[in-house]
Amino acid sequence: MRELDAGVLPDIARGAAILGCGGGGDPHIGMLLATRAIELNGPATLVSVDEVPADAVVVPVAMMGAPTVSTEKLPQGGEAVAALRALERTTGRRATHLVPIEIGGMNSLVPVAAAVETGLPLVDGDGMGRAFPEAQMTLPSLAGVSATPMAITDDKGNTTLVETGSNRWAERIARAVCTESGCSVFTADTLLAGHQLADGLVSGTVTLAQRLGAAVRSAREDHADPVAAAVDVLGGVHLATGKITDVRRATSRGFARGTATVESIGRTDVGALVLSMQNEFLLARGEGGAVLASTPDLICVLETDTGEPITTEALRYGHRVTVVAAPCDPRWTTSGGLDLVGPAAFGYHHAYSSVRVNAS
Amino acid sequence: MRELDAGVLPDIARGAAILGCGGGGDPHIGMLLATRAIELNGPATLVSVDEVPADAVVVPVAMMGAPTVSTEKLPQGGEAVAALRALERTTGRRATHLVPIEIGGMNSLVPVAAAVETGLPLVDGDGMGRAFPEAQMTLPSLAGVSATPMAITDDKGNTTLVETGSNRWAERIARAVCTESGCSVFTADTLLAGHQLADGLVSGTVTLAQRLGAAVRSAREDHADPVAAAVDVLGGVHLATGKITDVRRATSRGFARGTATVESIGRTDVGALVLSMQNEFLLARGEGGAVLASTPDLICVLETDTGEPITTEALRYGHRVTVVAAPCDPRWTTSGGLDLVGPAAFGYHHAYSSVRVNAS
Repeated sequence: MRELDAGVLPDIARGAAILGCGGGGDPHIGMLLATRAIELNGPATLVSVDEVPADAVVVPVAMMGAPTVSTEKLPQGGEAVAALRALERTTGRRATHLVPIEIGGMNSLVPVAAAVETGLPLVDGDGMGRAFPEAQMTLPSLAGVSATPMAITDDKGNTTLVETGSNRWAERIARAVCTESGCSVFTADTLLAGHQLADGLVSGTVTLAQRLGAAVRSAREDHADPVAAAVDVLGGVHLATGKITDVRRATSRGFARGTATVESIGRTDVGALVLSMQNEFLLARGEGGAVLASTPDLICVLETDTGEPITTEALRYGHRVTVVAAPCDPRWTTSGGLDLVGPAAFGYHHAYSSVRVNAS
Repeated sequence: MRELDAGVLPDIARGAAILGCGGGGDPHIGMLLATRAIELNGPATLVSVDEVPADAVVVPVAMMGAPTVSTEKLPQGGEAVAALRALERTTGRRATHLVPIEIGGMNSLVPVAAAVETGLPLVDGDGMGRAFPEAQMTLPSLAGVSATPMAITDDKGNTTLVETGSNRWAERIARAVCTESGCSVFTADTLLAGHQLADGLVSGTVTLAQRLGAAVRSAREDHADPVAAAVDVLGGVHLATGKITDVRRATSRGFARGTATVESIGRTDVGALVLSMQNEFLLARGEGGAVLASTPDLICVLETDTGEPITTEALRYGHRVTVVAAPCDPRWTTSGGLDLVGPAAFGYHHAYSSVRVNAS
């Protein structure tokens, strides 16, 4: 158990946005939310998965929607707690702990804000070990935990409670509600008992995000290579360095979708790298369309000079970036894991092979 | 109080489909549902609005969606009761009575089936005095009653509970859920206390539907004019008789929308009549675009030979039809009523004037 004060939030936000693979929303907005909440309520209490009792009631809270929208329609604070309270009313159970469902820019910090607003401890872990765009793409889902009842709140004061037979239907109905409400809502769902955390969470990812964010910052302060520092903490591989020369992005059916092209600067012997995204970076292709890295492995885009992560909605022409990849949690590369978040789950036709193998 | 046995259902279905202005779904499907339910459970008990105690808990149940879909994806029975039970769970209140929210083809009979399945009495009345396509277009809504909590069930076993600050948002979110689930769901919403029925219902419309349906049938049996019999019971006016020469219809954003043209047969001195529809017939225009009848007044399309009502989704080229119009409940022509269901609520730009005035 340790305290998180406002001082550590920039490192967590930076690290989580790297782990978030471009998704999970704008880390800066998440940091503003969490900073404000800590200023008002005091520091958050972070507990490790081991410290959570077996009968604990652990609730993931998150922002759902298109990050392109949430950077324009800022949350007011309190929306995630409203979703939590609605979930508590419908289940008749009180949350004892909160947890991020994904470790991504904004969604790693939304639960920090909700934790201090409710006085509940935050569990050091998350339900993906990265960010994914859909509600059924979680380790609890892989472990057979229902995503519903799911509570959804929006900025108009609307609350929707969804109860479905499958987590894919939970995603579909929640996404329809989210899209109708303007592509930015808050959710509380996938209620976990303490004894389900070993299967349902990647342990320690809040601390990992903080360590990753701190490593990038330290390297920059020491005039070392911040991208290399990130690759080192991630255990990742370098895919490309260059300039963003094309971004095609549309906010369609509730997601920010598109592609981005990275071209090497001053070198004609290296082909362009093309990134495909749906809120997150999901696929990196090199020359001749060869797959360099693919979901569920992590694909992260960092500003080359600073090591700062660039989210899919912030990516623009001219950015000097380095693309790195890192292996995902091993549960994602099982047959069931690939069914949920492998290439085919996003409509791609290639077979997954680990970024470790591709890089060797 | 009186009993409704299966023998009266054809008359109710016919009359309700006429009052439903082409909407409320296929009366035949509603009749199959209600007939089956009465065969299994015995007759329904119909009580007048006066017989309902002030503290009664009266719940409208209905099918929501595009009628074009519900004629292909038939209900199994029990869906409306599932929605009712979900509403009861969330409110902690047990329904004492059921009622149709609209008097339309299918939606006048869905509550009959649910009433006999639950053993609850059915109130003789409805929340519109006709059918309208959207959830906020009800007299309870006009009287300030919230449409939410609203329970929505679908054929996949999904249940959604919606709680909104306004009935327009209830419609928007419910429609998004309905569309995502395949444009055919069942709802329980707009919970009414007994003392709210005077403001919230048009009284006696189940009996009116039965009388109207019987009048058409009797006229046909007596070789009299069934359309004239309907116009007589409706207190309506004749707008046009002819052939459907064009139907443009699309199922878009959860509704069956389009136009239909009625041309006189063998007469060149009478211009064509064009009907506009969104689940219901909303507007009848004559020569030069002159408005002959408009929402909220009733526009009904009857088969000329038989007096059988034709719903918007059943309308097709070659139908020999007579178009009649009748005045709506006077609450709809107040300023607040026209805000909810007048021409502007459907995107039309003409001012409403009563079909009585237009016809004089």
